[in-house]
Amino acid sequence: MADVRGRGFSGRVPLSVAQSWIDAQVSALDPRAVPLAGAAGLVLARPVVSDAALPPADRAVRDGFAVAAADTLGAGSYNPVLMAFAQPVQAGQPLPEGCDAVLPAEAAQSVAGLVEAFDSVAPGSGVERRAAAAAAGIELLPAGRRLRPADLGLLGAIGFMEVPVVPPPRVRILLAGGPRDGNEALAAMMVALVRRDGGLPEVVGPLVADRAGLAEAFAAPGADLVLVAGRTGVGEEDVAPLALADAGALALHGIAMRPGDSAGLGLAGGVPAVLLPGEPMAALATYEHLGGRVVRRRAGRPAGLPHPVRQAVAARKLVSEIGSDDLYRVRLTADGLAEPVASPAMPGLAAAARADGFVMIPAESEGVAAGAAVTIYLFD
Amino acid sequence: MADVRGRGFSGRVPLSVAQSWIDAQVSALDPRAVPLAGAAGLVLARPVVSDAALPPADRAVRDGFAVAAADTLGAGSYNPVLMAFAQPVQAGQPLPEGCDAVLPAEAAQSVAGLVEAFDSVAPGSGVERRAAAAAAGIELLPAGRRLRPADLGLLGAIGFMEVPVVPPPRVRILLAGGPRDGNEALAAMMVALVRRDGGLPEVVGPLVADRAGLAEAFAAPGADLVLVAGRTGVGEEDVAPLALADAGALALHGIAMRPGDSAGLGLAGGVPAVLLPGEPMAALATYEHLGGRVVRRRAGRPAGLPHPVRQAVAARKLVSEIGSDDLYRVRLTADGLAEPVASPAMPGLAAAARADGFVMIPAESEGVAAGAAVTIYLFD
Repeated sequence: MADVRGRGFSGRVPLSVAQSWIDAQVSALDPRAVPLAGAAGLVLARPVVSDAALPPADRAVRDGFAVAAADTLGAGSYNPVLMAFAQPVQAGQPLPEGCDAVLPAEAAQSVAGLVEAFDSVAPGSGVERRAAAAAAGIELLPAGRRLRPADLGLLGAIGFMEVPVVPPPRVRILLAGGPRDGNEALAAMMVALVRRDGGLPEVVGPLVADRAGLAEAFAAPGADLVLVAGRTGVGEEDVAPLALADAGALALHGIAMRPGDSAGLGLAGGVPAVLLPGEPMAALATYEHLGGRVVRRRAGRPAGLPHPVRQAVAARKLVSEIGSDDLYRVRLTADGLAEPVASPAMPGLAAAARADGFVMIPAESEGVAAGAAVTIYLFD
Repeated sequence: MADVRGRGFSGRVPLSVAQSWIDAQVSALDPRAVPLAGAAGLVLARPVVSDAALPPADRAVRDGFAVAAADTLGAGSYNPVLMAFAQPVQAGQPLPEGCDAVLPAEAAQSVAGLVEAFDSVAPGSGVERRAAAAAAGIELLPAGRRLRPADLGLLGAIGFMEVPVVPPPRVRILLAGGPRDGNEALAAMMVALVRRDGGLPEVVGPLVADRAGLAEAFAAPGADLVLVAGRTGVGEEDVAPLALADAGALALHGIAMRPGDSAGLGLAGGVPAVLLPGEPMAALATYEHLGGRVVRRRAGRPAGLPHPVRQAVAARKLVSEIGSDDLYRVRLTADGLAEPVASPAMPGLAAAARADGFVMIPAESEGVAAGAAVTIYLFD
């Protein structure tokens, strides 16, 4: 790739091409078994199949007394019937031998170890039959599933102490420059974004804008991908693209998106690397579309934007440059209108804080007319 | 409260009453300053007001050369004009004295320290004016805001190294019993649920079902709230309600909801305590409606269910008992139908794993007819 310093970009790659490069180059990490307690939110690498029936035996679905239903025949409020056998059970507990129903505690009275029924129950009442939830050999959880809290409960109940998952990728965040007020200000945002996408962040820097030092930090072992924030532009000190080339390969530099058109992609020490501009709003936009895509793919998650989406109507015209994927920060009004808060060119995060989310205007579009349907990607 | 062991509940409290008890008794923790890097997802305790204009000076919105626009007059592709002064700037950097525009690097050529313009720029082009994002004294972030990644970037940029937030509540999870297969299986689920709601979980147990030992664990200092899973029912070993009474106060026991009707609420050692049944599906349901509500309120978050919701149409009739808030696990079909996967009475988490979410049938309803509108609370 050309050195763009002092010269500018001779052209920029469409965002869709950059994303295709990521999808072709970046795959999920190799599966690994992790302890159940650490598996929340991770992606299951193999389906989980029940190796026994669930439940393994008839069990209570309510608290009460396990009884033989036939023994309760004729029992009523004014006609208590003494049970030949009655054992207290809690919902979820297996039924003792010879019992086929659960008498609610409210319909029973226990005196000196003897239980009287004040109501009759039908056979099977209050009972879940063996294998009612799943027969042996049934798939309980599919491969690719992002494990939910309740999934961990299920896995624990069937005896999994470890789970085969895609482990969280180790993400090195290099702070390589940025606005004059100090790019360490970016660290907390980058860490929170990486965690949201399932990565384990490690912050390095701020580093002085030194090509050799940056190249070394890019190539150092121990990361599954590297993000660099800052020093991606056309100034003399913008050595991040050169350092990435030194550390491996600079595949793309200059992306047709706003904000963030000095972003880039490559390989550093054998792992994917993403160049994010140091201007905070550009860093955010390029993280969402490029850096986060790499994190999400390594974590085995869907590659696309993870934000909840909301359909809305443009309150005003959103003007866009043909040839550039443009990000508008917008506010969602109570009546479903998307109000622009800041144009793609406006730097800084104060407008992002005022916005509820963002709308993307594709490169081939001149913009969106007032009243047109738009998709809002919500920040929350 | 009465000892319900062997006797059953003489009545059950409506879920709405239990939730009102929580809302009246449980407030957010006292605000505290935490380092910026640890503030993601926490709730801002005070509004953040800009104490200076943002940006504090005119700044570049794109990479290029800061120039005086007047100097570029007449410049064009075939008419390069030598700049009297031109300084490389990156998007976000302040403009040097005397400059009022940013010439894109692509419209410039830098030779031996001298810059030629190949295009003219208007005054203000590529520049964000001082205070354009926010004047001094403007509220940048409101109190009560759950801090987003971009908010951390903004706070970092304006120099906050610490943020005043509601700290994450310390949540003690007592494993006090449960199904025969071992209630340690519940730990991973409970931990994941508490983390989702912004709490810091600490697991204690499994403890033997010993009233004095449980009461001690309830009352031990160091927790902002206590959840106990198991031993809440009507069996001889169901000593959790009695232990809670010993450790402080048992306010409610027996809630008109399914699953989970042996849940309860109280105060232990001065902090709120929630009794969750040990059957895993009942533990999940009562966590979502009661335990999680306490966690969320202590964390300063909205008290209600945190799940994304989806409107759907009941594929079949969902039968419900009058007098009980019933939870149906449902699958959401591609055509927007809510297919019941398991009735409120069905124990176990295999059905929750097959479901996409759940539908609540309020206590005053006999159920939902096929074709009626329902709200699905999504597990994901």
